[in-house]
Amino acid sequence: MKDSLYSLLDEHYNEMVKIRRYLHQHPEVSFKEYETAAYIEKFYQKLTIPYRSNVGGNGIVATIKGAKPGKTVALRADFDALPIQDEKDVAYRSKTPGVMHACAHDGHTAMLLIIAKVLHSKQAELSGNVVLIHQHAEELAPGGAKSMISDGALDGVDVVYGNHLWTNTPFGEIHTASEHLMAAADRFTITLHGKGGHGAIPHQTKDPIVIGAQLITALQQIVSRRVNPLDTAVITVGRFEAGNTFNVIPHSATIEGTVRTFDSNLRDWIVEEMERVIKGTTFAGDMEYKFEYFNGYPPVINHPEYAERVIQAAQQVPDVKKAIFVQPTMTGEDFSYYLQERPGAFFFTGAAIENNFVPHHHPLFDFDERAMLIGAKTLINLTLQTLTSE
Amino acid sequence: MKDSLYSLLDEHYNEMVKIRRYLHQHPEVSFKEYETAAYIEKFYQKLTIPYRSNVGGNGIVATIKGAKPGKTVALRADFDALPIQDEKDVAYRSKTPGVMHACAHDGHTAMLLIIAKVLHSKQAELSGNVVLIHQHAEELAPGGAKSMISDGALDGVDVVYGNHLWTNTPFGEIHTASEHLMAAADRFTITLHGKGGHGAIPHQTKDPIVIGAQLITALQQIVSRRVNPLDTAVITVGRFEAGNTFNVIPHSATIEGTVRTFDSNLRDWIVEEMERVIKGTTFAGDMEYKFEYFNGYPPVINHPEYAERVIQAAQQVPDVKKAIFVQPTMTGEDFSYYLQERPGAFFFTGAAIENNFVPHHHPLFDFDERAMLIGAKTLINLTLQTLTSE
Amino acid sequence: MKDSLYSLLDEHYNEMVKIRRYLHQHPEVSFKEYETAAYIEKFYQKLTIPYRSNVGGNGIVATIKGAKPGKTVALRADFDALPIQDEKDVAYRSKTPGVMHACAHDGHTAMLLIIAKVLHSKQAELSGNVVLIHQHAEELAPGGAKSMISDGALDGVDVVYGNHLWTNTPFGEIHTASEHLMAAADRFTITLHGKGGHGAIPHQTKDPIVIGAQLITALQQIVSRRVNPLDTAVITVGRFEAGNTFNVIPHSATIEGTVRTFDSNLRDWIVEEMERVIKGTTFAGDMEYKFEYFNGYPPVINHPEYAERVIQAAQQVPDVKKAIFVQPTMTGEDFSYYLQERPGAFFFTGAAIENNFVPHHHPLFDFDERAMLIGAKTLINLTLQTLTSE
Amino acid sequence: MKDSLYSLLDEHYNEMVKIRRYLHQHPEVSFKEYETAAYIEKFYQKLTIPYRSNVGGNGIVATIKGAKPGKTVALRADFDALPIQDEKDVAYRSKTPGVMHACAHDGHTAMLLIIAKVLHSKQAELSGNVVLIHQHAEELAPGGAKSMISDGALDGVDVVYGNHLWTNTPFGEIHTASEHLMAAADRFTITLHGKGGHGAIPHQTKDPIVIGAQLITALQQIVSRRVNPLDTAVITVGRFEAGNTFNVIPHSATIEGTVRTFDSNLRDWIVEEMERVIKGTTFAGDMEYKFEYFNGYPPVINHPEYAERVIQAAQQVPDVKKAIFVQPTMTGEDFSYYLQERPGAFFFTGAAIENNFVPHHHPLFDFDERAMLIGAKTLINLTLQTLTSE
Repeated sequence: MKDSLYSLLDEHYNEMVKIRRYLHQHPEVSFKEYETAAYIEKFYQKLTIPYRSNVGGNGIVATIKGAKPGKTVALRADFDALPIQDEKDVAYRSKTPGVMHACAHDGHTAMLLIIAKVLHSKQAELSGNVVLIHQHAEELAPGGAKSMISDGALDGVDVVYGNHLWTNTPFGEIHTASEHLMAAADRFTITLHGKGGHGAIPHQTKDPIVIGAQLITALQQIVSRRVNPLDTAVITVGRFEAGNTFNVIPHSATIEGTVRTFDSNLRDWIVEEMERVIKGTTFAGDMEYKFEYFNGYPPVINHPEYAERVIQAAQQVPDVKKAIFVQPTMTGEDFSYYLQERPGAFFFTGAAIENNFVPHHHPLFDFDERAMLIGAKTLINLTLQTLTSE
Repeated sequence: MKDSLYSLLDEHYNEMVKIRRYLHQHPEVSFKEYETAAYIEKFYQKLTIPYRSNVGGNGIVATIKGAKPGKTVALRADFDALPIQDEKDVAYRSKTPGVMHACAHDGHTAMLLIIAKVLHSKQAELSGNVVLIHQHAEELAPGGAKSMISDGALDGVDVVYGNHLWTNTPFGEIHTASEHLMAAADRFTITLHGKGGHGAIPHQTKDPIVIGAQLITALQQIVSRRVNPLDTAVITVGRFEAGNTFNVIPHSATIEGTVRTFDSNLRDWIVEEMERVIKGTTFAGDMEYKFEYFNGYPPVINHPEYAERVIQAAQQVPDVKKAIFVQPTMTGEDFSYYLQERPGAFFFTGAAIENNFVPHHHPLFDFDERAMLIGAKTLINLTLQTLTSE
Repeated sequence: MKDSLYSLLDEHYNEMVKIRRYLHQHPEVSFKEYETAAYIEKFYQKLTIPYRSNVGGNGIVATIKGAKPGKTVALRADFDALPIQDEKDVAYRSKTPGVMHACAHDGHTAMLLIIAKVLHSKQAELSGNVVLIHQHAEELAPGGAKSMISDGALDGVDVVYGNHLWTNTPFGEIHTASEHLMAAADRFTITLHGKGGHGAIPHQTKDPIVIGAQLITALQQIVSRRVNPLDTAVITVGRFEAGNTFNVIPHSATIEGTVRTFDSNLRDWIVEEMERVIKGTTFAGDMEYKFEYFNGYPPVINHPEYAERVIQAAQQVPDVKKAIFVQPTMTGEDFSYYLQERPGAFFFTGAAIENNFVPHHHPLFDFDERAMLIGAKTLINLTLQTLTSE
Repeated sequence: MKDSLYSLLDEHYNEMVKIRRYLHQHPEVSFKEYETAAYIEKFYQKLTIPYRSNVGGNGIVATIKGAKPGKTVALRADFDALPIQDEKDVAYRSKTPGVMHACAHDGHTAMLLIIAKVLHSKQAELSGNVVLIHQHAEELAPGGAKSMISDGALDGVDVVYGNHLWTNTPFGEIHTASEHLMAAADRFTITLHGKGGHGAIPHQTKDPIVIGAQLITALQQIVSRRVNPLDTAVITVGRFEAGNTFNVIPHSATIEGTVRTFDSNLRDWIVEEMERVIKGTTFAGDMEYKFEYFNGYPPVINHPEYAERVIQAAQQVPDVKKAIFVQPTMTGEDFSYYLQERPGAFFFTGAAIENNFVPHHHPLFDFDERAMLIGAKTLINLTLQTLTSE
């Protein structure tokens, strides 16, 4: 059955690419993925695969019940995009200004839809059930996973798997980790309340841009000075916004960013240190501040036995050159919530375009579409083995 | 005649306030002041005072010809507003989100319209002509003055005056300077081109926010270290904009600001030092930059004889408690261009609200409206004396 | 034999403390440890244990030949001190201003001398030989290990061991690692050549203190922004020296520091980034620089089999509560050179004073002297087992 | 008499140079000028000019009583040197390592000694008395002026003059100001008390070098952001000292510097702002601080009538090309104390070496020795005119 499913995937590869490119041209930011959800629904409607929509938000959960008994395996794909301007020069470039699939969720969705289609066509031979979780809002905390789980997305599920098309992984390789795979991903907002005024009369103001600049510099030193060099932490400011004209010192400045860690004590220490640095720097600048810190997704921690299964399943896929355990990445994923509820694993499907590496979340991001096929075969093989395992 | 004009101004004070508040509620940013210009036109149309519209842009020039011979004196008022959100809690607060008369140009316009009205009613007794220059776009270089002059605003004019309602000056006082009154006001834009990417993978990016923060800090040291402490210079960053979400390191960052000086050699030195600091800082951050520097208005330099006349005329106005020469301010004005073409002077009419000082360009900016009356009387007296001077 | 040696060590504990405290009062900085070397020589002379002095500098190598055949095991202790002012308030505080045993080398020496004494007394029963390597200059690259090895310190040696009394390890514990135990430790010097002058006339100078301050800040960002968060690196500035009076801007500033890594590609990348940051920052400050980078000791990498022996031997020592593998430390040691030449291992003997943790290299540094006994017993047991191993 | 004195000065020019060069080779820092004082004493002893030594410290006051009645005029020269390493390559370079006459006090002393010698030779023709004040310790607050005045240096004196050989003034020119000539010169010391430790374990320390670097950067922003651009202020850090070896994070860091202002309210504001910035920055770095601020010399304010006399007297000296009023300098001088007690004036004698300008306090400082002759003639002429004035 595995081989006939592989063949079906090969046959539907063009359709997979077509779906992915359509979604790429029509990206929607987190929690606003109404059209994308409608697109997915229509796909299942057409195939008469039963599904539930508006699961915990814009989420959709479809189920393929096998004719024979077996386990229930859930596969998850996310479908939201990012507020980034697509700067690629390709025919399938985003048509929505300022919004872009810069993290391959379009690919995940295309993979999962085609997986559903081919499994559906083999329903009669299938042992056990496959649950297809199309998740909205992975990019923005609190994310869609938590609410979808609350709304029953994992009901009856025994094991859960997911993958991420990943340009940091070479094409043809599958990477995962025995346990820690991805970091905890938090968000923070700092607002500096200075005193605005004329740009030519600085001494009558309290300049939040100059103090904000110092703050950003000082925050970097938490990682380099206040964290054990053997531990792992990232503090990134992703947005600094202050002022709207050249000759007016603004009243306030807004700084937004993310903190990544694997250890919750370290996270607490960083929040404490940030507060200290913000308090001291704004005191020096004689201004007020507001510091908001939002705990984001917990780290993605695989279940070792299932991570091992990923490696084994992947090694059997003809196009996979290498399937290995790697060190974790600092990026976060709300797939962590599924793994808190059910055994399972998450993995990276190598999707780098040869000689043209572009990191995720970059305005020129793109991936090697053939990776969708490799990832889909790995998921199919993994699913078949898990459905019939003890 | 002076006294009867003073009385007329007193009688029209309520109308002056009404005009000012109407304009305050309907602000328009520089070079987009279409409705404001239409409002002014309508005022002159109604009074049948001849005027020319679209002078060098949205400017309007009206003329009141006296029945008797004399000099031609021009009075100038500007009428553009600023891209600042009005945060005052008053009935006449701006109705346009993000735009505000935070520099009293609404008051200048109200003063000049009522001056025109009262002079018009005394046309038969008037010696010489009064030219009323309603200038658009004072807040944004290249400003409206230059193009209005090119378009003939000063044709036939012998002497030019202007005033600024000024909250840095106490209510009841008139301040000016014998020569240097206001600084040269330049504008600059710096764009940092780093390399965007995922906020959790900083080492694969070139972070323009962190380098931008360092740059802002380093630019401040030009004033404190590289300029003669006995000279005068300001470098202000009024806008720092980078990134649009918390977990993406953006590709680029934009820094906008202003430089103020009184001396053109010092200005050149500052531009050179800025270039050096930008080049070095971006080299350290391994990124590209674009540095654009726009020479703004030259310094406002009064003609000493006419500055002296301002003081004398003001001292004769009943409500003026004090009329004095003061040290210059760092703010700029394109009134400088009029004074490059014609003799004349510019002055500050004290407009601070008692016990509630708010600097110009501040979201809570407001002024003591009675200052409009004091300023108008000073301008009227100054005009009458100049019209009949040798 | 092990037990009788343990008893002898117990009996000589007071002498061990006496030696340690004498050395603590008479510290000498690296490469200048003449009196300390003389003290060690005299000790061996008195016991008539044969030794070689001036081995590769101030080093001393003594040998105890057992009456019975067996392997040759070398034990190494270092004996130099640091240029730190002792600020402890104890009777045995350093008598030399500005120099201090702030890294427990006094303890290592006391341990090794007493080990030599007790083994010497049991020479008749000893199988194989024990080589006692008293090494000078561990604290300052190029260190003493390399030259002592060149000068024959390891000649005839089969296995080499060493330990470090360690206040980061709880008293009663022995810590080591299977392979990577300590980091590569490099040194750098940056000299900024500005232009000195009167402190009141900054614009005629190029201020190396202000630029040096910016540089120190910018260097921190290499760790936080330019190094993979999953890799490990430290950049520390340990010395910033500029100027010698309050009102003179000095000509130059000197910055000295250390870089720690476990990976040589990462080290090269850091050196490259440092050069870029230094070049850019000094360009911005219009000054020259000199950047010297000295590769220091390579990482200390244990031989796994011998690391395992350390754990086993330690677990048999009565006072050892715990002997475990731990994650590596960022500190460096030239013990790495011995392990490049011979199999062996290095370990940490827990020496923290309860409720009074002070880090190494701190002016208040001290350790629990009873740790010397525990470490000595562990070394004795390890030696005995190794001497007679296959 | 003026002309014969000029001739005598010309005749003694070589001796003046010899004295200056001897002193240049034997500099002594402030308050330690024992040998220099002895040298001056011996000079007066040899000429049998009466003098008082140890006046208020190392100061010496000699008096030449004219045979005829007249006023009593005091001339002052300072004689201390600076803790700077002389880096010039000249025969008369400093022989004392780390100490140097980098501010021309050697020249002042040579001038005053020769002035004494020639006036002494004309004692019979002299009307009134000339008091020669050789002041120690001008470079280091509290300075020598105050204690010399307390010890009677101005007793009986009617008018006091002084000059400074000045490389910022072109050779051949005499510059002074009607009133404000030199700034108030204060001194500050900031000590940061962090927590020292091993350079490889930064998270266990509180790094005073990294926080000190941030502090220096932040202090610069007081001048650029918190001081009215039209006011004048300098904050210079002249010394940063922290750590004494590359791999130890030190316990503390010391920052010393100077503040220059002309206005005492501004000075108070700066001290307040410094305290705020220090407090905030050290709070951010979780460390303690000590901030000491020492009010230094008040501004040098000439008495206008006597400043006018300087200009007139200078213009009569044959070699003076130009004698003018200039804007004040930011440097300080304890000559201010003399002018608080007696009428008089201070002036700058242009001493720049053509095509080789080096600022004062620079390791390569030197001056055109012919300026000593011009300055001496100006002082002689000024003295003669003042002695016989009403």
